[in-house]
Amino acid sequence: MTLIVQKFGGTSVGSIERIQAVASKIARFHRDGHQIVVTVSAMSGETNRLIALSQELQDRVSSRELDVLVSTGEQVTIALLCMAIEALGLKSRSYTGGQVPIITDSAFGKARIERIEPSNIKKDLDLGRVVVVAGFQGVDSEGNITTLGRGGSDTTAVALAATLKADECQIYTDVDGVYTTDPRIVMEARLLPEITFEEMLEMASQGSKVLQIRAVEFAGKYGVPLRVKSSFNEGEGTLITLEGQKDMEKPMVSGIAFNRDEAKLTIRGIPDQPGVAAKVLGPISDANIDIDVIVQNVAKDNSATITFTVNRSELESAAEILSVIANDLGAEEIIADSKIAKVSIVGAGMKSHAGVATRMFECLASEGINIQLITTSEIKIAVVIEERYLELAVRALHAKYGLEASY
Amino acid sequence: MTLIVQKFGGTSVGSIERIQAVASKIARFHRDGHQIVVTVSAMSGETNRLIALSQELQDRVSSRELDVLVSTGEQVTIALLCMAIEALGLKSRSYTGGQVPIITDSAFGKARIERIEPSNIKKDLDLGRVVVVAGFQGVDSEGNITTLGRGGSDTTAVALAATLKADECQIYTDVDGVYTTDPRIVMEARLLPEITFEEMLEMASQGSKVLQIRAVEFAGKYGVPLRVKSSFNEGEGTLITLEGQKDMEKPMVSGIAFNRDEAKLTIRGIPDQPGVAAKVLGPISDANIDIDVIVQNVAKDNSATITFTVNRSELESAAEILSVIANDLGAEEIIADSKIAKVSIVGAGMKSHAGVATRMFECLASEGINIQLITTSEIKIAVVIEERYLELAVRALHAKYGLEASY
Repeated sequence: MTLIVQKFGGTSVGSIERIQAVASKIARFHRDGHQIVVTVSAMSGETNRLIALSQELQDRVSSRELDVLVSTGEQVTIALLCMAIEALGLKSRSYTGGQVPIITDSAFGKARIERIEPSNIKKDLDLGRVVVVAGFQGVDSEGNITTLGRGGSDTTAVALAATLKADECQIYTDVDGVYTTDPRIVMEARLLPEITFEEMLEMASQGSKVLQIRAVEFAGKYGVPLRVKSSFNEGEGTLITLEGQKDMEKPMVSGIAFNRDEAKLTIRGIPDQPGVAAKVLGPISDANIDIDVIVQNVAKDNSATITFTVNRSELESAAEILSVIANDLGAEEIIADSKIAKVSIVGAGMKSHAGVATRMFECLASEGINIQLITTSEIKIAVVIEERYLELAVRALHAKYGLEASY
Repeated sequence: MTLIVQKFGGTSVGSIERIQAVASKIARFHRDGHQIVVTVSAMSGETNRLIALSQELQDRVSSRELDVLVSTGEQVTIALLCMAIEALGLKSRSYTGGQVPIITDSAFGKARIERIEPSNIKKDLDLGRVVVVAGFQGVDSEGNITTLGRGGSDTTAVALAATLKADECQIYTDVDGVYTTDPRIVMEARLLPEITFEEMLEMASQGSKVLQIRAVEFAGKYGVPLRVKSSFNEGEGTLITLEGQKDMEKPMVSGIAFNRDEAKLTIRGIPDQPGVAAKVLGPISDANIDIDVIVQNVAKDNSATITFTVNRSELESAAEILSVIANDLGAEEIIADSKIAKVSIVGAGMKSHAGVATRMFECLASEGINIQLITTSEIKIAVVIEERYLELAVRALHAKYGLEASY
């Protein structure tokens, strides 16, 4: 008998009919002899409805009470899903985060799971029950209701799978799995039957939104086999594995990720002295603005140029802070550019292959695309280019690395 | 400094505007130097919305999961009310039933409170916080979410007041307090500034729907001063007190209650032998049908007649059961009558006054109203009459006992 943790998101449980469809899917697995623990999100639209209610009251509401409010969304889903499962003749039992309990820290709205007490769930599984757990929520050590922040239900599923030593954690979503790149841009994009955790992490952090980064990190850390599947279609989806677990002959590049949500800021002509990068970037971080790519150069006249990217929605605030810094440091100028995009090639195989970067740069050059910034990791090369070349770059790289044909 | 427990029902918190009005009311009490614990119901309509969702799934849903589902209604209200209170510059903190915790038995949908652990709430009160507790809900000893059944939020308020030894428990509702009788029937009906627990209990059980019987019983048992007030108007409402606490010279009769939800069943011509009442009424009770008034007579021929009343909605099922019994016992006939009404005079003063019943019967006789059944307690006399005379009887008795003028 295997133990499977399944996660269904808001769209998958967005109506009574869909909840019934999820129940049928669960029942099939259960009848095949698997033990099932299910994590669910709030019905789609519900969380926004609750937040809208709170916004009628106050602009800046207490984050503790906001968690009390929005956590009701998943609580409604677990009750309804249990009823739907029981209507099919199976036994089931629902758990709020606090009932499991899933113990988190006290960072309301973005809490982190500290530990999960598995004994209640195990008892129910032994009794043949399907266990349904509210995603996205927990309690802190004082019993306050907390929520995990965006994508928290994925994290709940992975954490449950890790704690229960599940054989597989299945994330049901509205896509069929992880593709070599976005099929809306490259028609020939191919569903990957497997991808490593590292690759998945890089894909996610480079803009591929299939899974939340935190959930993937968590799964990788605890070695939980993670599978992304479609709620609405059949199919095996994509299995996210430890490196080399099954596939000895990894292709060099597994996928092309991209992101057009970033903007670029450059500060030019600052005296190149130790600590200048910290002086420029510190105040930006202090304002809670995430910085992604950072590049620093020194010009002939010994003045430094620092370029970095931030989320496009934060360009204005970042530029404001930067202009104060520029004044202080006597910089020549600052340049803001929101018309950029980031394209990345990701592949665990890059570790053992030389010349990957050169092929990427050649490919972009042959399409006449200028590279503005480059940043690399062991299994990823990302470049920032003009936004209008994004689709062209993705298609050219997808073809260059033979991703449509390599299986 | 006094400690006040306040309860606001679904209509009082039925919209964001009303929640803000409740918050202002609470803030006034808090600024007057009172410590405040508030219990709230779900926003009006919310519980029905949730139940309707569950009914789309299944006719007979699991009562455990139904409690998980409907308890979200109060959870939404406590969060929103705390936000509204904090918007006024006060500190506050919300509690679900499980967070207090309010420990109940495991009778899902109709759980009874076993005990309340007050230490968390006390800590918050000492910190100057307004404490907001979800009404109608608790947890059993295994951590399952339970609900208390109809009117449960009143019970939560009274139980909190008893546990915290509150100076007063205020139930806010859509009426101004307890009247001598229903003002829709007797224009001269008068708001009672005080009423005893016993009287309130009799008024409630005789059909006056201002407060739930369970909450009044609870308050009486633990000596919690209970006050019924209007959410929407100012005014002191009605204080429900221990007998003779303030008012030495109680009027003989405090109010006229009535009920037109009952129906009458008579079984005639059964052999009068020991245990015949049990044989007739046992099977009715076994079918979970509540019996109210019971009268048994013996006729000249030594045959017995038993008459009793049940809720009008259960007349048919009761009559079916009775016809089986009639067959078994060889009864002459059974008669069902749904066109009846019950009128009661209630007053703690009746204990020490003779002749109250006689005056009541004379009054009804002078209006030409025939009395079908009579039942009495120490502080109540109830009669069953033809339904069409109900308003006439209530008005006549209200005048007879001088209720409009006795203040």
